[in-house]
Amino acid sequence: MTPSARRRSTVHDVARVAGVSRGTVSRVLNGGYVSDAAREAIEDAIRAVGYVPNTAARNLVRQRTQAVAFIVHEPHAVFLEDPNIGAIMLGTNQALSEADYQMVCLVVDSVRDTERVARYLNGGFVDGAVIVSARAQDPITTAVARLRLPVAYVGHPPDVDAAWVGVDNRGAARDVTTRLLQTGRTRVGMIAAALDRDSGTDRLAGFTDALGDRFDSDLVEEVPLYSYADGAGAMARLLARAPDLDGVFAASDAVAAGALWALREAGRRVPEDVGIVGFDNSSWATRTSPQLSTVDQPAEGLGAAAAASVLAQLQGDESGPDGIILDTPVVWRDSA
Amino acid sequence: MTPSARRRSTVHDVARVAGVSRGTVSRVLNGGYVSDAAREAIEDAIRAVGYVPNTAARNLVRQRTQAVAFIVHEPHAVFLEDPNIGAIMLGTNQALSEADYQMVCLVVDSVRDTERVARYLNGGFVDGAVIVSARAQDPITTAVARLRLPVAYVGHPPDVDAAWVGVDNRGAARDVTTRLLQTGRTRVGMIAAALDRDSGTDRLAGFTDALGDRFDSDLVEEVPLYSYADGAGAMARLLARAPDLDGVFAASDAVAAGALWALREAGRRVPEDVGIVGFDNSSWATRTSPQLSTVDQPAEGLGAAAAASVLAQLQGDESGPDGIILDTPVVWRDSA
Repeated sequence: MTPSARRRSTVHDVARVAGVSRGTVSRVLNGGYVSDAAREAIEDAIRAVGYVPNTAARNLVRQRTQAVAFIVHEPHAVFLEDPNIGAIMLGTNQALSEADYQMVCLVVDSVRDTERVARYLNGGFVDGAVIVSARAQDPITTAVARLRLPVAYVGHPPDVDAAWVGVDNRGAARDVTTRLLQTGRTRVGMIAAALDRDSGTDRLAGFTDALGDRFDSDLVEEVPLYSYADGAGAMARLLARAPDLDGVFAASDAVAAGALWALREAGRRVPEDVGIVGFDNSSWATRTSPQLSTVDQPAEGLGAAAAASVLAQLQGDESGPDGIILDTPVVWRDSA
Repeated sequence: MTPSARRRSTVHDVARVAGVSRGTVSRVLNGGYVSDAAREAIEDAIRAVGYVPNTAARNLVRQRTQAVAFIVHEPHAVFLEDPNIGAIMLGTNQALSEADYQMVCLVVDSVRDTERVARYLNGGFVDGAVIVSARAQDPITTAVARLRLPVAYVGHPPDVDAAWVGVDNRGAARDVTTRLLQTGRTRVGMIAAALDRDSGTDRLAGFTDALGDRFDSDLVEEVPLYSYADGAGAMARLLARAPDLDGVFAASDAVAAGALWALREAGRRVPEDVGIVGFDNSSWATRTSPQLSTVDQPAEGLGAAAAASVLAQLQGDESGPDGIILDTPVVWRDSA
């Protein structure tokens, strides 16, 4: 490819090839009147030189990009393993698409990413943002607040005054743990994950609620990530510490799938020896053997509701920050 | 939130609050000389009104967005199930991040998405693009070619003259099928998927190569997607048609995982009764039981190499379109 082929074509190029003035080209581009002959010549020239209108210039005038960011703040490992994130993203993509908005997904894995994403948001490339997995004191959260971008969070980061959609993690964790206890288990532990986020601490709180007086902190193993690998490691450590364990609440389905693997390695039968329940009802839940009893988290619905909130704000809805809680029924299968 | 809080602040607001002229504000923003007192007043005013510079305007001048699109053209179901896509994306994200470029991921699921993504690319929001899963006559491919955007494809779409990175799907499929035949299987079938893409047709061609005279088209089942569900359905149909089947090459690990489920449902032992091999060495491969013998596709490496190609083009590399082939060793585990 020659250097000249790479340079972006301009209105000048179109005018030169079409043999008309730049003003005539502009009129065509802006829908004004020109003769049919001139229009045809200009359209041919546009194709010939590969011209595309400069939207950056148009955005200066209309101040809208028709794009909404979807920002995921997760380590790469979790992004790959957690089908929820993909499902939330696709829910957002579909809702934005129906409103003819473009979703642009930005993945934040490192501090460097954080700074660059904040800079990108600063740049006026998007009209709003859906934000997943924000932490307290997150630089992205700070940047969004400073920009006054229309925004909706999936999950409810502490100390953030903005629209959000989420689930009642605490209530759902309490419900699924209670159901596990009702199967007659007496030594029930938990693999708690992601305690740097509200979802992680709320699921642990719900477990604690359900156990009441029977809560034994020795039976709680904490891991950093909602991941298969962390679930497998934690299950092995729990079994070493409490060989008589007969029930486990895993903080996510991916964690539960890893725990199932560790239980099988240790020769424990599920659900006969140990009953296990997860959280999410993601694709993991139906691909383990036995299939997981779990909490149904409406991931696509969360993404769609967050997008709807941003779109409403863009259309001038000034009703202000609020939270939307979606339902999370317990789904009972074969793992407990 | 009040309407005034939602309006984006301008240089006028900053100038008014700081008590200086707009010209003075511009000088600060552009790094020119102003007195310390004025600079302080302006910086305070910027914080007070939440002003951010209009990058759309700056882009008009410097013609660079410092963003590169990552375009995935896959049905939502495949995006969720195929860990390769996530891994390719994260490889691209990391390589771009190291060069201080922002990756923006666009998901194309429908014709409507296609048109909107083409419009977005037209808009000058990105400096280049990495494109995954392009089909022949893809509108995105057409848009990118017309724009003369620096671009690299993952995979090699037919009739496209642009940089690409990929694997030798045909050779790798031949290798893994040959290895399967060497375990002594005599009735070997294939679940072929995604025959609307080069990867799909090439894997089928490699299977055909390996079988040679023993190739029996009755033992090939074709499905649309590289998905678990399509693998499960195809395996059930293959077994109904050829109950004596003793080997299967599944076109991807997700397909193989679905096939494993169907084999178990049908009471077949793996690898004793039926040996099965996959393709990808994705996270599926080590989470099935037994773990999959498969082809190692370097997904993150593909994403990183595609990003490197786009970055080289952006830095003026005019060496022109070419292809890069990454290695794909066979990984032998327990499923065959």
